[in-house]
Amino acid sequence: MIEIRGGIAIFQVEVKSEILKEVLTVVSTLVDEAKFNIMEDGLSLRAVDPAHVAMIDLNLKSAGFENFKATETELGVDITKMLDVLKLAKPTDIISINHDEEKNKLILKIANITRSMSLVDTTGMAEPKVPNLSLPVKVVVSTQELSQGIKASEAVSDHISLSASPEGFELSSEGDTDAVNLKLSKDLLEHLECKENVKSLFSLDYFANMVKSAQSSQSITMNLGTDFPVKIEFSIANENGSVNYLLAPRIESE
Amino acid sequence: MIEIRGGIAIFQVEVKSEILKEVLTVVSTLVDEAKFNIMEDGLSLRAVDPAHVAMIDLNLKSAGFENFKATETELGVDITKMLDVLKLAKPTDIISINHDEEKNKLILKIANITRSMSLVDTTGMAEPKVPNLSLPVKVVVSTQELSQGIKASEAVSDHISLSASPEGFELSSEGDTDAVNLKLSKDLLEHLECKENVKSLFSLDYFANMVKSAQSSQSITMNLGTDFPVKIEFSIANENGSVNYLLAPRIESE
Amino acid sequence: MIEIRGGIAIFQVEVKSEILKEVLTVVSTLVDEAKFNIMEDGLSLRAVDPAHVAMIDLNLKSAGFENFKATETELGVDITKMLDVLKLAKPTDIISINHDEEKNKLILKIANITRSMSLVDTTGMAEPKVPNLSLPVKVVVSTQELSQGIKASEAVSDHISLSASPEGFELSSEGDTDAVNLKLSKDLLEHLECKENVKSLFSLDYFANMVKSAQSSQSITMNLGTDFPVKIEFSIANENGSVNYLLAPRIESE
Repeated sequence: MIEIRGGIAIFQVEVKSEILKEVLTVVSTLVDEAKFNIMEDGLSLRAVDPAHVAMIDLNLKSAGFENFKATETELGVDITKMLDVLKLAKPTDIISINHDEEKNKLILKIANITRSMSLVDTTGMAEPKVPNLSLPVKVVVSTQELSQGIKASEAVSDHISLSASPEGFELSSEGDTDAVNLKLSKDLLEHLECKENVKSLFSLDYFANMVKSAQSSQSITMNLGTDFPVKIEFSIANENGSVNYLLAPRIESE
Repeated sequence: MIEIRGGIAIFQVEVKSEILKEVLTVVSTLVDEAKFNIMEDGLSLRAVDPAHVAMIDLNLKSAGFENFKATETELGVDITKMLDVLKLAKPTDIISINHDEEKNKLILKIANITRSMSLVDTTGMAEPKVPNLSLPVKVVVSTQELSQGIKASEAVSDHISLSASPEGFELSSEGDTDAVNLKLSKDLLEHLECKENVKSLFSLDYFANMVKSAQSSQSITMNLGTDFPVKIEFSIANENGSVNYLLAPRIESE
Repeated sequence: MIEIRGGIAIFQVEVKSEILKEVLTVVSTLVDEAKFNIMEDGLSLRAVDPAHVAMIDLNLKSAGFENFKATETELGVDITKMLDVLKLAKPTDIISINHDEEKNKLILKIANITRSMSLVDTTGMAEPKVPNLSLPVKVVVSTQELSQGIKASEAVSDHISLSASPEGFELSSEGDTDAVNLKLSKDLLEHLECKENVKSLFSLDYFANMVKSAQSSQSITMNLGTDFPVKIEFSIANENGSVNYLLAPRIESE
């Protein structure tokens, strides 16, 4: 009866281990389990972290896979567990993934090893809405520069401010006795669109994890306002996918 | 008086650090202290782990040493401590070991360092008997393939089943929701002698440590039956020695 | 008013990250915070560890820096914190350090990052006097040999004896059942001045940390007596600086 009504959902793909790891790492920054929306030509995912401070919106085209054969469906995945399974593979190993709908399992094949894992119940996983934000400033910065700024800040405070002016971009962090400042003038940025001074304060922990998950991307695009969320954007899977993080500001109490 | 009755036991050897490390690692899988039986042309060791689940039977010919001069004797060695001393040496360094019978010590020399260590009392160390087992199946498998199967299984369960049929060999592990299966058809094995289907269940922990200790050997020979111990065999010291592990099965409760 | 009376103390330097790390590591062996005496042509530091067992006397010429511009002053530095900041730099990165006297801070610049840190109060940091010792023996030994002897000793005891005779130098360590001995005859030493037999006992922990901090120096000079402190001397900053440690003996109770 079920077969007649809906047909059988298909999800049979092959993907390089390093690409899958990149995708899962990006998602694991905010959640341990997540619902992937499978389409005929790729997949997408939207999730909010348990504290409702940050959101991820991820898209990956079928071209990011070695092989991709799928019908529309939803797959609830234990991200942490699947990242663990990837430790069995070298970065360029091809992993095949099949959905066994009857048993409600994912079947992963790495070389001669077959690993089956239960899918996660997606009932409680609502699709968050991406808020409509008008962020006046856009800055494109080297991932490596941003990472250095974060590393320096972690010794000093648990929050950072991101600010921009028509002259450049600045990341700064202040503790009781010590301070860190990463100043990138316009010529040290890859791109800057800024007509007004903006500044927002963020949790360093969240921001750090987001930037760390972007390590395979050369640069990161940020959209900023004053006391507004920051939108963090970068490409994954050799330009075959994109990630958008949204991180809520902390309001400075002074 | 003693000299007249028995003469003086001699044990003066030189050995490559990496060979000694290989031997000690294999023994340390089951016991912390052990009794080596020294002969004129080599040494041997037989020991059972404290839980009486597994046994080791090791032989090493004098050709595995750079120099070997010994009369028949027994040496009780703190395996863990001697492995620790080896950290002072590079893999190809030659270590000289002498038995100072009068002081009941081993004297190790590594470059300009002399390290003396007390021998361990062997009074309580009985020589276990190797049981006479008739195991119908023999399979020779790549150490690397087996290691990957173990690594995958460790996330899923604390026991594994080893099975064989005339078509091939299989390692599998089942948890409550997840499962791992390493299937090697006859053509992926180095050797297979099997006329009947066999299957036994084992503690993953013991099996994993045994296979890990065989890392310098390309392949591992296993003898299997149904609900019978597995015999694990591989060579050490550049084919100048051999190790036989025997691991008792776990009986499946269903 | 203040400016008229004292003028403004200047400390503006540039230094290779690896040189700064070498200097700080040597000091961190004994203290977490220390007072650097700044002069026009370099800097010096003298400190005693909290248990008053050891002393350091360090000198570094301005030639050890890429740039050095300073007037006489004192700077109280949190050594541990500054070592942590150096993790942001690669060994050959140039770090600029400025003293902001008004805010009582050090301003470090590494690439595009500015890191400010409060200076430490030096009021309680008295300048220890270097005792006038007449140590009859001088021995110059390879840092690497000494390190191996220490590594071997750490498994055996928490103290070591250093002894010398006209024939050579010896480091030895004795536990209840085990012993370690590093014997370097005259021809294995870089230099030996010794007309009498001497022997002193030391805390292994202190001695080990001192030798570890000398890793960038090929050899270490030791001055020894019997039941007397050992003076440990080596160069830092590509021969542009020197370190003198003094370590009090432990009196053997027999």
